[in-house]
Amino acid sequence: MFSEKPFIHDHFLLENKFAEALYHDYAKGMPILDYHCHLSPADIAVNRTFNNITEAWIHGDHYKWRAMRALGIDEDYITGNAADRDKFQKWAEAVPFTIRNPLYHWTHLELARYFDRYELLNGESAEMIYHDTTERLNSDNNGCLDLLERMNVEVVCTTDDPVDSLENHKNLAQSNSALKMSMSFRPDRALQIDQPHFADYIETLETASKITVNSFDSLCEALKARMRYFDSNGCKLADHGLNAIYCLPYSAAEVEAAFELGRNRKSVSSTASMKFKSALLQFLAEAYNELGWVQQFHLGALRNNNSRMNALLGADTGWDSIGDFPQAESLSRFLNLLDQKNQLTKTILYNSNPGDNAILATMTGNFNDGSVRGKIQFGSGWWFLDQKDGMTQQLNTLSNMALLSCFIGMITDSRSFLSFPRHEYFRRVLCNILGGEISRGELPQEIPWIGKIVQDICYHNAKEYFNF
Amino acid sequence: MFSEKPFIHDHFLLENKFAEALYHDYAKGMPILDYHCHLSPADIAVNRTFNNITEAWIHGDHYKWRAMRALGIDEDYITGNAADRDKFQKWAEAVPFTIRNPLYHWTHLELARYFDRYELLNGESAEMIYHDTTERLNSDNNGCLDLLERMNVEVVCTTDDPVDSLENHKNLAQSNSALKMSMSFRPDRALQIDQPHFADYIETLETASKITVNSFDSLCEALKARMRYFDSNGCKLADHGLNAIYCLPYSAAEVEAAFELGRNRKSVSSTASMKFKSALLQFLAEAYNELGWVQQFHLGALRNNNSRMNALLGADTGWDSIGDFPQAESLSRFLNLLDQKNQLTKTILYNSNPGDNAILATMTGNFNDGSVRGKIQFGSGWWFLDQKDGMTQQLNTLSNMALLSCFIGMITDSRSFLSFPRHEYFRRVLCNILGGEISRGELPQEIPWIGKIVQDICYHNAKEYFNF
Amino acid sequence: MFSEKPFIHDHFLLENKFAEALYHDYAKGMPILDYHCHLSPADIAVNRTFNNITEAWIHGDHYKWRAMRALGIDEDYITGNAADRDKFQKWAEAVPFTIRNPLYHWTHLELARYFDRYELLNGESAEMIYHDTTERLNSDNNGCLDLLERMNVEVVCTTDDPVDSLENHKNLAQSNSALKMSMSFRPDRALQIDQPHFADYIETLETASKITVNSFDSLCEALKARMRYFDSNGCKLADHGLNAIYCLPYSAAEVEAAFELGRNRKSVSSTASMKFKSALLQFLAEAYNELGWVQQFHLGALRNNNSRMNALLGADTGWDSIGDFPQAESLSRFLNLLDQKNQLTKTILYNSNPGDNAILATMTGNFNDGSVRGKIQFGSGWWFLDQKDGMTQQLNTLSNMALLSCFIGMITDSRSFLSFPRHEYFRRVLCNILGGEISRGELPQEIPWIGKIVQDICYHNAKEYFNF
Repeated sequence: MFSEKPFIHDHFLLENKFAEALYHDYAKGMPILDYHCHLSPADIAVNRTFNNITEAWIHGDHYKWRAMRALGIDEDYITGNAADRDKFQKWAEAVPFTIRNPLYHWTHLELARYFDRYELLNGESAEMIYHDTTERLNSDNNGCLDLLERMNVEVVCTTDDPVDSLENHKNLAQSNSALKMSMSFRPDRALQIDQPHFADYIETLETASKITVNSFDSLCEALKARMRYFDSNGCKLADHGLNAIYCLPYSAAEVEAAFELGRNRKSVSSTASMKFKSALLQFLAEAYNELGWVQQFHLGALRNNNSRMNALLGADTGWDSIGDFPQAESLSRFLNLLDQKNQLTKTILYNSNPGDNAILATMTGNFNDGSVRGKIQFGSGWWFLDQKDGMTQQLNTLSNMALLSCFIGMITDSRSFLSFPRHEYFRRVLCNILGGEISRGELPQEIPWIGKIVQDICYHNAKEYFNF
Repeated sequence: MFSEKPFIHDHFLLENKFAEALYHDYAKGMPILDYHCHLSPADIAVNRTFNNITEAWIHGDHYKWRAMRALGIDEDYITGNAADRDKFQKWAEAVPFTIRNPLYHWTHLELARYFDRYELLNGESAEMIYHDTTERLNSDNNGCLDLLERMNVEVVCTTDDPVDSLENHKNLAQSNSALKMSMSFRPDRALQIDQPHFADYIETLETASKITVNSFDSLCEALKARMRYFDSNGCKLADHGLNAIYCLPYSAAEVEAAFELGRNRKSVSSTASMKFKSALLQFLAEAYNELGWVQQFHLGALRNNNSRMNALLGADTGWDSIGDFPQAESLSRFLNLLDQKNQLTKTILYNSNPGDNAILATMTGNFNDGSVRGKIQFGSGWWFLDQKDGMTQQLNTLSNMALLSCFIGMITDSRSFLSFPRHEYFRRVLCNILGGEISRGELPQEIPWIGKIVQDICYHNAKEYFNF
Repeated sequence: MFSEKPFIHDHFLLENKFAEALYHDYAKGMPILDYHCHLSPADIAVNRTFNNITEAWIHGDHYKWRAMRALGIDEDYITGNAADRDKFQKWAEAVPFTIRNPLYHWTHLELARYFDRYELLNGESAEMIYHDTTERLNSDNNGCLDLLERMNVEVVCTTDDPVDSLENHKNLAQSNSALKMSMSFRPDRALQIDQPHFADYIETLETASKITVNSFDSLCEALKARMRYFDSNGCKLADHGLNAIYCLPYSAAEVEAAFELGRNRKSVSSTASMKFKSALLQFLAEAYNELGWVQQFHLGALRNNNSRMNALLGADTGWDSIGDFPQAESLSRFLNLLDQKNQLTKTILYNSNPGDNAILATMTGNFNDGSVRGKIQFGSGWWFLDQKDGMTQQLNTLSNMALLSCFIGMITDSRSFLSFPRHEYFRRVLCNILGGEISRGELPQEIPWIGKIVQDICYHNAKEYFNF
């Protein structure tokens, strides 16, 4: 009754000949500009090799961890002390239970693209695949840098704290690597005046900046010094992860008082904290504009829900989810304040809650000023939205409420060197949507034109937007 | 131009051969575990028979009532004094105007499954169908219990107030019925300190528990006594209907003061009321955990919007709708407080607002602890979401953001003995989604494996989760 | 590989023979009742002719402006002083970059329907199309009134301020025009006590009403006088554009105090302003009920986000977007207060945020009272939602949570005389949805019945609802 072909094949996700033409003739060959990810700069700089696929694939991947926990697998096999081979076995046994989750597609696409393995991963195929992939990872030319180059990655931008020395970026820049590793400036910790690590962080910042930070102004000065340092190392982007944009009115005295409390490890009220954050965010946004950087805002995640596991494993270990914070008014106020002063730099807005798609997509249209194509961007489907449905909804909302043709496209947002087929995945989804519309007559059969727009979204728009 | 076949046929909602195979070979034969409904325990215990289809189908069905009101039909034919035959006529005339509403599908599926009638219901077919169905309902073996058994129902869990005697449950348990009727403990009225019935309810609870309830602690004691009673009668579930989870900080003194006001029929401020509810909910959740029960939360309905009709007809008569309450932060806080104390029992989260799908689906992943598969569940499409689109969205969000394979599946949530084809409907929708993905190559053609997952979702997962 | 036919053709958006039959045999011939738009009454009354297509198509169309700004086009070519031919060129060059935005479909549908031009508009075809369309617009029988009649428009309702003289409406009524131009009463400015124009507006209202407005009561009296005047000119509708419904408790003294401040150009606090608005809205709603009008509420837009451009160009020039205001509770309270007094008139609820679809669709069911079919309506996809996806979602939510068959259908909400093919577009989308369901067996093959419902939605329901 049912014929057989490999699950991952040439026309995966491409449902008609228009989609196939757009993907194979236009999208596939474009280099990758991964302008937002969480890769380790050190791993890239030293071209780290992995001992086995568990190291490369399961260590650090909180998507897989959450799936394994949902299946009732013991934490020992997830982040614990179990042997790498055993962890892989548990993951392999979990994979058939992940059908319809993006992990199922990522898994098989990654095995195909990095290891030429087309079998379905499960408990039985685990042994063979473990050894085959480990052998491959241990052979020549399979370090982190090699893996990126094999995926045709032209630029990656890591995500870095203001206190980072950027040594790895410098080292790679001085090598003869074809890959360009840039960075983004992510000062989340400098804003978190309501969290215990704030005072320590200020001290770290003092060391990094060689500036005494004993006032809000000197905090700004120190951050500005770090921005200049980042800029001199080729930085073009900033990034923030926030519940929502902070944009309360504040006075200098209020902000100063809040800073004093925070620096002295005293409790800061919720309102005082919001005012401090509003002031610092405003300062930072103006500084980004001065440097000509692009600012990114990742809005709406609800982080660190599980205190017990947070204490055990730290942040970013799979205990985050989607919030329902009001977004529209504060975001509008923030962008408007900057625009009024002619201080609004290029901006990318990402949402965690799919219910905010329409808000962000339409907000972008309020601050395009004719200076540049697509100045304010509605960013690619992020985190929990980084799957076929989420991408499709982002692309549809963007198309309906703004202009798809100006979109700067996909990013991995990943911590894994094996995540780069997500660009392929995005491109297939994009081409399939367009091909579907052509086949239904909702778009004209203008393949070269639509192919050009595909290439713009996959590559040229970001190239131009960031001046990579 | 247009060929004819019965509207309800073997492959209804199944769009390709994979969907057909999954439904007919795997889903169809599974027994039904309806772990949340609002059936009358008395009707089941005495195997009540209905005089006619109006009694069985229209009395008590606020979905139909809302549709009839939208059509401008006089309330006399809805909840009023019109004769049963006349009420049925009005409903039959309304049916063709309900196209695309789930009522249209439910109606014809129910006529087919319980009465083998395949005609479309309308004003003209009403007479024939009324008599035919009435004859059937009056014949032997068409009591409530028979109707459930004909649908292959293995377990139903009714929804019961703590003060309920559970006599009907006991009686059925002592009979030789193949059907298992369990229950869920739903203490909504004990939480509603801000409503006029609170003080009366406390008195009823005193009677039922034989405990004097003159303090918050004795309220907890009385509820605990009723929980033990429910538990000794086989109860495995609790249930709450809430705007949103209450999880404010509170002091014992604040809670005691609020309780005193409520018990003495005095007005309780909104904040005091929220603190009381927060405290009681916390107590209850810990007690559920102690008993090893599953707790369910139905979140986000906006109830009793129409005061005039509420005064005339009471609650649950069709004047409820969907709210837009913030859900994420209080829910996270609540679950986290329980998890920190190792007091978080298995939990099912249902949302009324489809915009909360992503919030609930991702929240589940924050508190899976490896102890059991799918410990925290994103519940089936509920109330207004209990239709093809709503089910599809729930299944898609669950699949994308958590694991479909761990899902414990569908419930009727119904007050009607004729609602059980909703399980068939859900299974067809589920199989059609999976079949569609197989046919598009988004899932591999592994029918036995995917069939196994279908059976898990339809039956085995719930069987194991509840230990039915 | 790819065959050619005109982009806009007979079966555009119709994907199967059922959809085609429904559209061509039932929908297409229905006259248009455009019960909500923003056309210029003067242009209609004098049957204004346009000098060229830029005047008719680009002047005043903020949808096109936003797209052009996103593309980085200089404002000079958008709202500035560039020549009409040059503005058209820029727009034509922009069109290929608008693929997947509704503008792409509107553009080609409008060229086809008004000008019989089937080429794709782009930089190269611009010259030919500019001249051809200009020639047409300058020929006989191509004035505003003619354009409406060519689209088979039976009624348009413009949107008018209470102070409007309605001279144009009177003039057209006295002519022998086949088109009926009615109006809606939109007192937004009378509610905006927190905005600088309020005191001036009160003076204008005094002039128009010939009533001294020196108290809240006299404000109500003056507005009532204007309502009577509108009513005597055939008005049947009111309309409000609001973030969300205002429904706070208030005292007469609070409202009077707020009014005094506003009238004297003093600042009114946010709470006082909300109370004033709550009181005035309540008054207005009761007055609409007394007159037997239909009240419309356009909820949830976030307007005037860009202060700089607002100062330059004024409101409604493309700087608005979608908000995330809580809607459900205040809306419920408002409708319930009216219903309790038996003062709730027919009501249409429109949402700007697609996340509010379910809230509004289910709210309608709480206040249907059997007096009339579809008394409370969930309005057509509006503004950013006025595209295929937005329409489809509105139709689906309406169908699933209320009754599609009672729907009063589409409106243009437009400022442009070339927007009327949006009705055709809506009808095609509607017929395609229904046809798709028939072809999948989700609806029976009852074409005459479903065709009747299509005609009801396109024409008869609105005709009856408004008694046009």
